[in-house]
Amino acid sequence: MASQQFEPPSGTRDFLAGALRTREAVFARVRQVFERYGFEPLQTPAFERLETLTGKYGDEGDKLIFKILRRGDHEATGEADLALRYDMTVPLARVVASYGSQLPTPYKRFAMGPVWRADRPGKGRFREFAQCDVDVVGSVSPLADAEVVCALTDALDAAGVRDYRVLVNSRQALTGLLESYGVPVDLGGGVLITLDKLDKLSPEKVVAELVDARSLTPGIAEALVGDLTAADAVERMQIRLKGSEAGRAGLEEVGRLLELAAPKVGDDRIAFTPSLVRGLDYYTGVIFEVVAEGMPGSIASGGRYDGLIAALGGPDVPACGGSLGVERIIGLLGDDQSDAHRTDVAVTVIAEDTGSEVMDFAARLRDAGLRTEVYLAASRKLAKQLKWAADRRARFALIYGASDKEAGMITVRDMDTGEQAQVPTHELAAHLTERCAPSR
Amino acid sequence: MASQQFEPPSGTRDFLAGALRTREAVFARVRQVFERYGFEPLQTPAFERLETLTGKYGDEGDKLIFKILRRGDHEATGEADLALRYDMTVPLARVVASYGSQLPTPYKRFAMGPVWRADRPGKGRFREFAQCDVDVVGSVSPLADAEVVCALTDALDAAGVRDYRVLVNSRQALTGLLESYGVPVDLGGGVLITLDKLDKLSPEKVVAELVDARSLTPGIAEALVGDLTAADAVERMQIRLKGSEAGRAGLEEVGRLLELAAPKVGDDRIAFTPSLVRGLDYYTGVIFEVVAEGMPGSIASGGRYDGLIAALGGPDVPACGGSLGVERIIGLLGDDQSDAHRTDVAVTVIAEDTGSEVMDFAARLRDAGLRTEVYLAASRKLAKQLKWAADRRARFALIYGASDKEAGMITVRDMDTGEQAQVPTHELAAHLTERCAPSR
Repeated sequence: MASQQFEPPSGTRDFLAGALRTREAVFARVRQVFERYGFEPLQTPAFERLETLTGKYGDEGDKLIFKILRRGDHEATGEADLALRYDMTVPLARVVASYGSQLPTPYKRFAMGPVWRADRPGKGRFREFAQCDVDVVGSVSPLADAEVVCALTDALDAAGVRDYRVLVNSRQALTGLLESYGVPVDLGGGVLITLDKLDKLSPEKVVAELVDARSLTPGIAEALVGDLTAADAVERMQIRLKGSEAGRAGLEEVGRLLELAAPKVGDDRIAFTPSLVRGLDYYTGVIFEVVAEGMPGSIASGGRYDGLIAALGGPDVPACGGSLGVERIIGLLGDDQSDAHRTDVAVTVIAEDTGSEVMDFAARLRDAGLRTEVYLAASRKLAKQLKWAADRRARFALIYGASDKEAGMITVRDMDTGEQAQVPTHELAAHLTERCAPSR
Repeated sequence: MASQQFEPPSGTRDFLAGALRTREAVFARVRQVFERYGFEPLQTPAFERLETLTGKYGDEGDKLIFKILRRGDHEATGEADLALRYDMTVPLARVVASYGSQLPTPYKRFAMGPVWRADRPGKGRFREFAQCDVDVVGSVSPLADAEVVCALTDALDAAGVRDYRVLVNSRQALTGLLESYGVPVDLGGGVLITLDKLDKLSPEKVVAELVDARSLTPGIAEALVGDLTAADAVERMQIRLKGSEAGRAGLEEVGRLLELAAPKVGDDRIAFTPSLVRGLDYYTGVIFEVVAEGMPGSIASGGRYDGLIAALGGPDVPACGGSLGVERIIGLLGDDQSDAHRTDVAVTVIAEDTGSEVMDFAARLRDAGLRTEVYLAASRKLAKQLKWAADRRARFALIYGASDKEAGMITVRDMDTGEQAQVPTHELAAHLTERCAPSR
């Protein structure tokens, strides 16, 4: 049988202890931050009714939905009625629609867990991957936007990400930008999609694409790209945007977010970025992305999306939120090799008839909170059992031979130094609790 | 639109904060116990290749597998190539086959997470539900069986379940039992399935089913059921089982488990139970079930299944393990209403222009570890904002009016007593950290 058959399905991963602990440590730290901000956890099912999901992610998104075949007699139809969760936002809209008045107002929730997309698997791109979202549903206050940005950047700090920058813009500012350069309204969407590539393509290539693919006149394209990539782009844009109503409203939105969030995030880590677009067209207010040195793309992003909950089938409520690129962050960390998960005590089993005593020692040590493992393999050789204790990265090994037993003692071996001490069995738990304490 | 469309799919549940916290607290406590025993966490994908799962759960089980439709051009075939995880054991077998030598020997792992079965939903029966398994792969030692039993009962203790009893039997004892009463070998499997109903049906009904459905002679059926339900059933069975080789081996297995596990579990909470069958025919050694007062069925169960990993596609290694009926345990607990998740501080926003100060107060309190929420709705009325603070179950509310601002002070309202105190803004974090500390 090919070994491939034992691998997890394409685009998915098995997490053994070390990798899983790294993931869970990141989730725990992020979660603690979200809770401190008063966001509440929400967990929805892995799958939703198919009709809840279809039509919500565009044609390209719909193709990536994992659909679940109907069951029983209906299986033969080849039809699907359920589908795996594609993101955390559509389930949020359904929950807001379903539980309405039972939820706090505004409803501040976080969601952490896997989502599934039938994307072509690749380096760092998975079909099962974790999302980590915070959203505020039911508030138009700029404080809500600021809270989302601060919660996400606080979470990045907690996860150990340094040297990041928060790029801020607004949909209204983008509308004002297009107006100001005389971009025809019907070309606006395409122009923004191309402008979004300014962080990846050269200005010349962006101009070329604006002209060739977006039907913009060369004059407008060059002026737009020239200003956006100038050293004083922000100043140029501020002047430009002040010339239109949408532009002024956008500048005001951005200014308010900076005023509220910058003291916490740090003035040098957050800035108005007029070229920031964000592909998704459901944003209605401020938008932001967090980028970090050495990481491609963004490690967090979000914005205000006042119409989305209604568009997804929920009630017409304002909302804003953001997402942490938690897989990217975890990808930078290695397996957890910390001492936090070392075995404290490994109990060897040398003599054939000491099983009950060994279970008793282990029980007392575990009751005292020590991570304790009992030798479960067949060998009765001490050397082999001590090798096992070393493999388990045990701090201490217990050796309980016939002579120990007679004397009512047990031998405690420090696995780091090799030193051995005899301890009365009834003092074992106290002895080891004390010796394990300083390094715990 | 019907409100039903916003409910989660049939047999699944949304977990809002209170219910989710209860679940997670149980998982965390159970997990801590498993870790103390040296079991390592394992997480596998939500779905497996379809062929990994089919044929592993019997015909009835196969019908309950959620199958995932092929994607893209293959969708139209109506064929499935993936399927949602049905239990934690088949993925374990795959992982053992895949990672072999990278895993510790023996491999002691726990797995906690959802599995999916297309069962008819009903009271307490879900299509998405959590499983919580511990297994030891690669050890034939009776200590391994004892560790599994102790880890599960320790976990029950930690989850707050009291008054449980561990019923112990062995497959070999059951073989000896059938031999001893002269049950024809080919009827044995069916006879055991019927005997397994002795905890639900009257002895007369079980005798009738043994005769009618299992083709046992009335004499044998009556003798068997009579002895198994007698007040001194255990003594009768011990005498019976000593008469055959399988019976003696079974008694020895059971005796060894009791000897090793009873001191930890408690002598009065674990006992040889000759009528315990366990439906699944993959068990090869000791088997056990944990039952609790007031709970139907079992709340934990398991045993030794030396051939299963190989039968599931893994290598031929001995194994034993057990499962915690975690949904049943959680079902007995209510939503988490504990003070652990109260909001510490609710910050009101009375004046229009205090957003920056409010964000600053909140940031300092959060940095000090206090759960702090900012008023995000539109009203500027203090009464309304204090009602919000009360709804959020805040310990303290902060009020920062124009006069406070002028004096460099902030008003701290104890939400339980209504008492208010003015505190210099620069002392706010220290003041509240101290006042929140005792009850935290």
